[in-house]
Amino acid sequence: MFENEVPQTKRERTRARIREVALRSLRKKGYDATTMRSIADEAGSSVGNAYYHFPTKDHLVQELYVEVQREHLALAAPQLEGIEDLATRIGIVVRTGLGNLRSWHELAPQFLTTAIAPGSPNNPMSAESGPARDIVLGLFRDAVEGSRTQLPGTLGADLPHALWNAYLLLTLFWVYDSSPAQRRTDRLVDAVLGVLRFALPMLRVRPFRRSVTEIVGIVAGRDA
Amino acid sequence: MFENEVPQTKRERTRARIREVALRSLRKKGYDATTMRSIADEAGSSVGNAYYHFPTKDHLVQELYVEVQREHLALAAPQLEGIEDLATRIGIVVRTGLGNLRSWHELAPQFLTTAIAPGSPNNPMSAESGPARDIVLGLFRDAVEGSRTQLPGTLGADLPHALWNAYLLLTLFWVYDSSPAQRRTDRLVDAVLGVLRFALPMLRVRPFRRSVTEIVGIVAGRDA
Repeated sequence: MFENEVPQTKRERTRARIREVALRSLRKKGYDATTMRSIADEAGSSVGNAYYHFPTKDHLVQELYVEVQREHLALAAPQLEGIEDLATRIGIVVRTGLGNLRSWHELAPQFLTTAIAPGSPNNPMSAESGPARDIVLGLFRDAVEGSRTQLPGTLGADLPHALWNAYLLLTLFWVYDSSPAQRRTDRLVDAVLGVLRFALPMLRVRPFRRSVTEIVGIVAGRDA
Repeated sequence: MFENEVPQTKRERTRARIREVALRSLRKKGYDATTMRSIADEAGSSVGNAYYHFPTKDHLVQELYVEVQREHLALAAPQLEGIEDLATRIGIVVRTGLGNLRSWHELAPQFLTTAIAPGSPNNPMSAESGPARDIVLGLFRDAVEGSRTQLPGTLGADLPHALWNAYLLLTLFWVYDSSPAQRRTDRLVDAVLGVLRFALPMLRVRPFRRSVTEIVGIVAGRDA
């Protein structure tokens, strides 16, 4: 069932209500203060029933991840239409993503702490995060494939995944960014896109192309 | 008192023993399984006495950080002697640092989880981590200032701090690197140094220099 379809059965309605209460609580109170008990109480459900629908709080974090990525997709997709320049397309995906995260800045350290360990189900690279990850990966793939730039060798295939990893690093920088409205992060994005625009034509130079292809492949997880 | 001086008084000897036991435990059992109680027990001290010398476990983590950075310094400094090429010097600092971390790979996710939040005393950017940070920052400053390369504008002043931040990101990549002996991270370092060698002469081109100077300044925390 898609979450935006109208729930039909009583069980579906209960699940939808628990999910809605949980996501509102995660947005408002953050990860630490949101508990299965507080969710169940507010949803007028038993704790057992909440656990029946969502085995752990982290399953609800995944619902949140998917919702946030869908918001990102909805913001980015219309802006990408008709744009052919690769750096501009990448900039659109990155800037709409950061814009969509803006209201999360205060709560972000909590999510970072639960998500950072490689084995955490809330880690963006975990199997559990697959559905949310696929939405953003798809966006970066669209950004690359929909541009008029033809990338040599394995670069075109690896770039979307590498960009997604770079985007995760950028959100890490953003969590630490204490400047007003995180404007330093915006400036960093502008400057990196400037380097990208300069570097793309340089890919004709063989040693540069070789090193960049190697970096993009490693960061994308090729042969990992 | 320097930790490698011979402790004189009974109080100094107790402090040195607690510190030694704690560092051995952090190295062997990791962050989570090391407690003030287990440290005090093993050191033959009361828990109260352990707290007298080190108000929290995180104070002992700082002792560990300093020790690890001193090891790094001891490995890197002799290799830097007589080397004038900037990329080679940066490579020496980065590779000796990673080499020194090798035995920590299994325990690293625990330290990452306690250290990642911007407000954590174990965060490498915290005030508490100042003494450990200064050692590595000094190494990167030495790498830059001891090279024959003259960097334009603010680049020379900002590069050491930016390199240190990039090094932290590299260690994050390394934590996630599940390849044998983390060789993917080594390959990434090689490829990034390849790009650096290619990019340094390009700094003569104004738009490229402007974007790179901006990125290095932002990442270094200039005007932060």
